[in-house]
Amino acid sequence: MSDRNLTLLTDLYELTMMQGYYKNKNRDIVVFDTFFRRNPCGSGYSIACGLEQIMEYVKKLKFTEADIDYLRSLGIFEADFLSYLKVFRFTGDIYAIPEGTVVFPKEPMVKVVAPIIEAQLLETTILNIINHQSLIATKASRVVYAAKGDGVMEFGLRRAQGPDAGTYGARAAIIAGCTGTSNVLAGRRFGVPLAGTHAHSWIMSFPDEYSAFMSYALLYPKVCVLLVDTYDTIHSGVPNAIRVFREMKEQGYELSNYGIRLDSGDLAYLSKVARHMLDAAGFTDAVISASSDLDEHLITSLKLQGAKINSWGVGTKMITSDDCPSFGGVYKLVAIRDEKTGRFVPKIKVSENSEKITNPGNKTVFRLYDKNTGKIKADLIALADETFSNEKDIKLFDPVDTWKETLLEAGEFTVKELLVPVFREGKCVYESPDVMEIREKCKEEMDTLWEETRRLVNPHKVNVDLSDTLYDMKKEILEDFPDVKMKNRVR
Amino acid sequence: MSDRNLTLLTDLYELTMMQGYYKNKNRDIVVFDTFFRRNPCGSGYSIACGLEQIMEYVKKLKFTEADIDYLRSLGIFEADFLSYLKVFRFTGDIYAIPEGTVVFPKEPMVKVVAPIIEAQLLETTILNIINHQSLIATKASRVVYAAKGDGVMEFGLRRAQGPDAGTYGARAAIIAGCTGTSNVLAGRRFGVPLAGTHAHSWIMSFPDEYSAFMSYALLYPKVCVLLVDTYDTIHSGVPNAIRVFREMKEQGYELSNYGIRLDSGDLAYLSKVARHMLDAAGFTDAVISASSDLDEHLITSLKLQGAKINSWGVGTKMITSDDCPSFGGVYKLVAIRDEKTGRFVPKIKVSENSEKITNPGNKTVFRLYDKNTGKIKADLIALADETFSNEKDIKLFDPVDTWKETLLEAGEFTVKELLVPVFREGKCVYESPDVMEIREKCKEEMDTLWEETRRLVNPHKVNVDLSDTLYDMKKEILEDFPDVKMKNRVR
Repeated sequence: MSDRNLTLLTDLYELTMMQGYYKNKNRDIVVFDTFFRRNPCGSGYSIACGLEQIMEYVKKLKFTEADIDYLRSLGIFEADFLSYLKVFRFTGDIYAIPEGTVVFPKEPMVKVVAPIIEAQLLETTILNIINHQSLIATKASRVVYAAKGDGVMEFGLRRAQGPDAGTYGARAAIIAGCTGTSNVLAGRRFGVPLAGTHAHSWIMSFPDEYSAFMSYALLYPKVCVLLVDTYDTIHSGVPNAIRVFREMKEQGYELSNYGIRLDSGDLAYLSKVARHMLDAAGFTDAVISASSDLDEHLITSLKLQGAKINSWGVGTKMITSDDCPSFGGVYKLVAIRDEKTGRFVPKIKVSENSEKITNPGNKTVFRLYDKNTGKIKADLIALADETFSNEKDIKLFDPVDTWKETLLEAGEFTVKELLVPVFREGKCVYESPDVMEIREKCKEEMDTLWEETRRLVNPHKVNVDLSDTLYDMKKEILEDFPDVKMKNRVR
Repeated sequence: MSDRNLTLLTDLYELTMMQGYYKNKNRDIVVFDTFFRRNPCGSGYSIACGLEQIMEYVKKLKFTEADIDYLRSLGIFEADFLSYLKVFRFTGDIYAIPEGTVVFPKEPMVKVVAPIIEAQLLETTILNIINHQSLIATKASRVVYAAKGDGVMEFGLRRAQGPDAGTYGARAAIIAGCTGTSNVLAGRRFGVPLAGTHAHSWIMSFPDEYSAFMSYALLYPKVCVLLVDTYDTIHSGVPNAIRVFREMKEQGYELSNYGIRLDSGDLAYLSKVARHMLDAAGFTDAVISASSDLDEHLITSLKLQGAKINSWGVGTKMITSDDCPSFGGVYKLVAIRDEKTGRFVPKIKVSENSEKITNPGNKTVFRLYDKNTGKIKADLIALADETFSNEKDIKLFDPVDTWKETLLEAGEFTVKELLVPVFREGKCVYESPDVMEIREKCKEEMDTLWEETRRLVNPHKVNVDLSDTLYDMKKEILEDFPDVKMKNRVR
């Protein structure tokens, strides 16, 4: 993506609306929030991911002559607007929660403050990038959790939804804790570790399995993981692998990173038998890696069954987030600046479904940690000009069941604001850490979650509350909102 | 993709195997088949899609200096192999089933005949592209079927798995019959129709809904579809839309392509009430379009409920193929040419699961149509040098339940070979039709399916049989295969 101009990667309606704002001379400075309503895959948390690609996209925003010609050919855009597009650039501010951070529903992950004509254009691409990478990072985090410290390799490129899904999906998976990827392009672009040995075709290109193994071992004695299921895992694959390990040792090779890979069949049974055979032959440190439509639930099941697998190659189900292949991020107008007062006037999108009513206003997010454990106590969505410190008690309350209260006593918690400035007046003011640094940060973030929030099934929900000021403001707007009163009478 | 070099978009193991073939001086000419084992989403058929992007990929194959430098830095590739990569190009043959064609499990969709070192590299990218686009085309075909002739717009870019998934997904959706996409980049790159009007933010940027509608209608009187659910669909949105349509008419505008869009709430109920209101106001030709997490099943349900929707905007669930987000295409070595005889020696990958045993040999696919109806009678996988004509009876039999036989009488059927040459000795010999032409072809393909095969749930399975010669060859190989006999004794 780094070398690509994605300016036209947008929905047509962003452009028709932009022409509308242009024609109406609407120069309002507005605030758009990017947030999601539900964690994917039944997760108790999500992982923010994709910001670096959003930065690249915004920096490169430019309608080329060819783009303009194409738009003109559609017959719906007028000359003055097309001339404006020629000189279009982003001049606003962007705030975002850094990549690798744990995030929860309703929190603004990316906030755009800009003239409405500019902020509108960014909607589709910001959502496309954030929705994809945050989805895969969240899914991969679950897989890594299930592996309980074993290495997880990302092997999904061939089943990913196109080249970008494979490459940025690998990036997201590494950020979430995978130890490597098979995707060479991702390796090159992001400086992340690569993994992989050989396929069945390697074995089948030799007259027999033993010759194939031996040839491979001699070529790659330092990363000698042999695929044992081409013909018959127990009666052919594992015995041939053991023979090769033995002969390699006899020839003086020092085997360090070596073992077998199971890619089909009953992985619980086969891994136990293979472990027994390898141990009996003295290869107690041989790795048993497995791959075959794995996901977090299958890995958990295999662990429960006592499978002797200590390295996991995870493909299709992680790179597509099979059980939930989309992250429902949305981009909503939440405030318009009053040019007279300079203050942001909150805007709300109502809905029959209370859950879908947006949080209005120019906002930010504070995270409150337990001082002793470092675990997250709660998140607090507040107006951007509010401040919180740990020198005063904070009384939190559930924004729906308001009688549910929590008192955080002064000194017993720490506070961090999650949104950081990324663009100021069109200039990028944030430097993205590299992928392996983000991965480290993400690992630390995992330690801020209670075990009950990390678990795979029915995780404990982290409280995301509204500040008193924001809560009161929202309530007031809703009560004064004529259409909402009407809505209460529908049917 | 057209301007991108995807040479490194591959799994590391393709490169480690290539170095192995290089070091072993393995110059075998081999055959790899790309096929899948099951139609996605419970479909009775799949649609081949993505060939044009594979052609672009293969044409652009080239390791740049920077690529080589990166590979060198990994410390596993040797100088002679890296020098070979510098001059690497594809010199083999590729055959494929053209895009838009209906395909069934086990049929070789893309066949690569090339030196093993070249054919191996292509695996990951061919699979990535074919798996993605065939998946989305198949899913979209189901959505289009459910819409029963209504227009289906592809609106999924913001929820697609990255930029490519949005853009090539839009391409696949159009090929499968969608009437337009919101994705401007897809529109520009593939010359396909664009669709879209405005979002809630447009409405919210005005002091009231009526002004927002009126402003939009005056700007786009020819494509005036108004989003009516920002505040209250029935009590505010539809009445305001009717007021605007009326005033536009009074002002002399001729409304042709106009109407409303519902994006939330109970679409069955709301569409009926809205239809009634529009009709009562004299706007009987106003379109009611709907969007809101739609898929083929929800559209079917809405139709059954008598919803008054005649245009469908389908996003998330189509662009990700929500209920089945991967197409299980695989790439398997099926033959190696004997340099002495010039004949292809069949190769087989066995498995405890009979379904997973590959069809060996250098093959092709014939499609047999009923002469009178033009419907598909069966497909026949055969060896590449076999020929079939409609001048002789063909007795087909099920490759598993071999007692199930069908006799096609001479003259009562027509025959077509599905695989066409795409590359010959490294040169591209196929010209891809443009996307709208492929879409037409795909529409004709739908007419070759029996209604029972197109239905969404429990479709009738189309027979894919093996030629006598191929069947006998496969049986013989399996019976002579020592490891398979062993496998029968496992546990």
